[in-house]
Amino acid sequence: MNTGVESLPRTLELVLDAQSGLATLCYVEQNQLPDVLVMCEARSSLEIVDAIKTLSVRGAPALGVGGAAAIALSAINEHGESGTAELLDGLEALAAEIISSRPTAVNLSWGVNRVMGLAQRLAQETDNPALIKQRLFDEVKLMEAQDEAINRQLGAVGAALLPEQCRVLTHCNAGSLATVFFGTALGVVYTAALQGKIKGVFASETRPVLQGARLTTWELSRAGILCTLICDDAAAVLMAQKKVDVVLVGADRICRNGDTANKIGTYNLAVLARHHGLPFYIAAPTSTIDTTLASGKDIVIEQRSAKELALVLPDNTQVFNPAFDVTPFDLITAIITENGLFAPF
Amino acid sequence: MNTGVESLPRTLELVLDAQSGLATLCYVEQNQLPDVLVMCEARSSLEIVDAIKTLSVRGAPALGVGGAAAIALSAINEHGESGTAELLDGLEALAAEIISSRPTAVNLSWGVNRVMGLAQRLAQETDNPALIKQRLFDEVKLMEAQDEAINRQLGAVGAALLPEQCRVLTHCNAGSLATVFFGTALGVVYTAALQGKIKGVFASETRPVLQGARLTTWELSRAGILCTLICDDAAAVLMAQKKVDVVLVGADRICRNGDTANKIGTYNLAVLARHHGLPFYIAAPTSTIDTTLASGKDIVIEQRSAKELALVLPDNTQVFNPAFDVTPFDLITAIITENGLFAPF
Repeated sequence: MNTGVESLPRTLELVLDAQSGLATLCYVEQNQLPDVLVMCEARSSLEIVDAIKTLSVRGAPALGVGGAAAIALSAINEHGESGTAELLDGLEALAAEIISSRPTAVNLSWGVNRVMGLAQRLAQETDNPALIKQRLFDEVKLMEAQDEAINRQLGAVGAALLPEQCRVLTHCNAGSLATVFFGTALGVVYTAALQGKIKGVFASETRPVLQGARLTTWELSRAGILCTLICDDAAAVLMAQKKVDVVLVGADRICRNGDTANKIGTYNLAVLARHHGLPFYIAAPTSTIDTTLASGKDIVIEQRSAKELALVLPDNTQVFNPAFDVTPFDLITAIITENGLFAPF
Repeated sequence: MNTGVESLPRTLELVLDAQSGLATLCYVEQNQLPDVLVMCEARSSLEIVDAIKTLSVRGAPALGVGGAAAIALSAINEHGESGTAELLDGLEALAAEIISSRPTAVNLSWGVNRVMGLAQRLAQETDNPALIKQRLFDEVKLMEAQDEAINRQLGAVGAALLPEQCRVLTHCNAGSLATVFFGTALGVVYTAALQGKIKGVFASETRPVLQGARLTTWELSRAGILCTLICDDAAAVLMAQKKVDVVLVGADRICRNGDTANKIGTYNLAVLARHHGLPFYIAAPTSTIDTTLASGKDIVIEQRSAKELALVLPDNTQVFNPAFDVTPFDLITAIITENGLFAPF
């Protein structure tokens, strides 16, 4: 079947060339959407780190697998002569660089730490760098498959919560483009759509980087879901006019108490949903849960460039441009994961 | 004194050339800001209507005077040979066209109707078109002066409400650029700043047309007020982090019960302010009060082009782009006018 969500491209995929033995990360260049779908091929870890920093690869779950892929690719392509110790040292330096490149999405460190933990265990067991490299590659392929499976499972959990003829408001892009495949918040939409429950989706454009206007509209159009673009400022009037039934977004980091960091503007929507009596759902894989953080006040919020807001800035004008905000759990109706609804602990 | 607010340009000014006897409307071309300050000179009513439609002249109070100026200018420049009846007919057709060009800001019809009412009364009294034209010109000059006087008075009323070291969040541009001179919401800021009460202003960029990012930052920079630009999505986190003390915006139409139409996103801010326990003020001249409307549900909301949100729109993607929203009076702490605080009736 090549319609609906199944017609979307895989957002990223690590491949190994049988002849050269070298790895390539194929990924959707998200800064080119919606104008054109460009698949990039990165063959160095530097290219992947750059793609993460410039948001060519973005979305918390995709960052997790992308970060892991950068480690595996570096091991394979950039350590041809390294012994095990040298390989580990090199990967550890790279891991630190990757993790610091986007501080808020916990999935990035989760993914990097998952393959680094494996590398460290293997280095205890074997002095065969080739074996370690093969196992890191296999691990990334497993993560890719698990990401898709988790999203489909999470989609089923979430779809059960939606009413018939549901009109969803989403923010940013928590779609297939934010994952390896299928999506989190939009994964719920795709599953519910197959059940005939989706009337349409409102996509807020999501200033300053416009992931909603650029990515969510493109993805939903391709997947055959009716989408209406609004500016972020129109969310409240949409709710007041009873044009939307639920708000459904992704997450970049979830604390033990359920406080959730997500794209700037998410907290606005949570407050607006509460005021209008609408359910407000987060959809995220359990890898987004940061068990080390008790509450949202401990989350580091990435501050991004003033240039995202204004190319021409008058004298003595400052810019406040946090990339994320934190929604307290008491404004969240439910956090949807692949294992059911998250219970704070 | 040529510093602070007094150094701002007059937003619009109708002038009469003594030699030719022709009128010119000089105005700030607001689509060119903040890149460059361009003063345009319109000599036909068509040019003025076009400037209003394309937002080169915008802001509720400025639209009121601009609409009136178009009528006076047309009478002077475009009816050289007309008798009184012909003059009146021509102006009435133009008045209808101007009023329909921007349906939400009541000041536009208020200003046009004010000079048209005068023209109709004069036509009963005299058959001298030259006298009517002169009186229309004089009326517009009076409106210009009254606009500034009203704004300064309104500024004093509002400034008294602000705390010391006040940090203001404003939306769109209700500044000098939205009036003939001095501004409404920003008029309150300028008056309070002269009293030493303003610590700084947060300007939300105000998608989709970015009046905050383009106009408010420019105006505050020029007036010497510390300004911090945020994207609209960052308003809630700003409040949660206690970085702002009051929300202060303008208005396009105020109903008898106090429900207020203003730039899309205003209602969002009112809900967010309520949730965070912050005062939410509207500042507007009494000409913004539409005594014919009982409540906000009667306000016609202008829908603008999808192109304001997306130049590239994927197949089957719709756009919902209302230019304004309505804030119910129960979310408004006070409506500041030149005559004191508005009391619903």
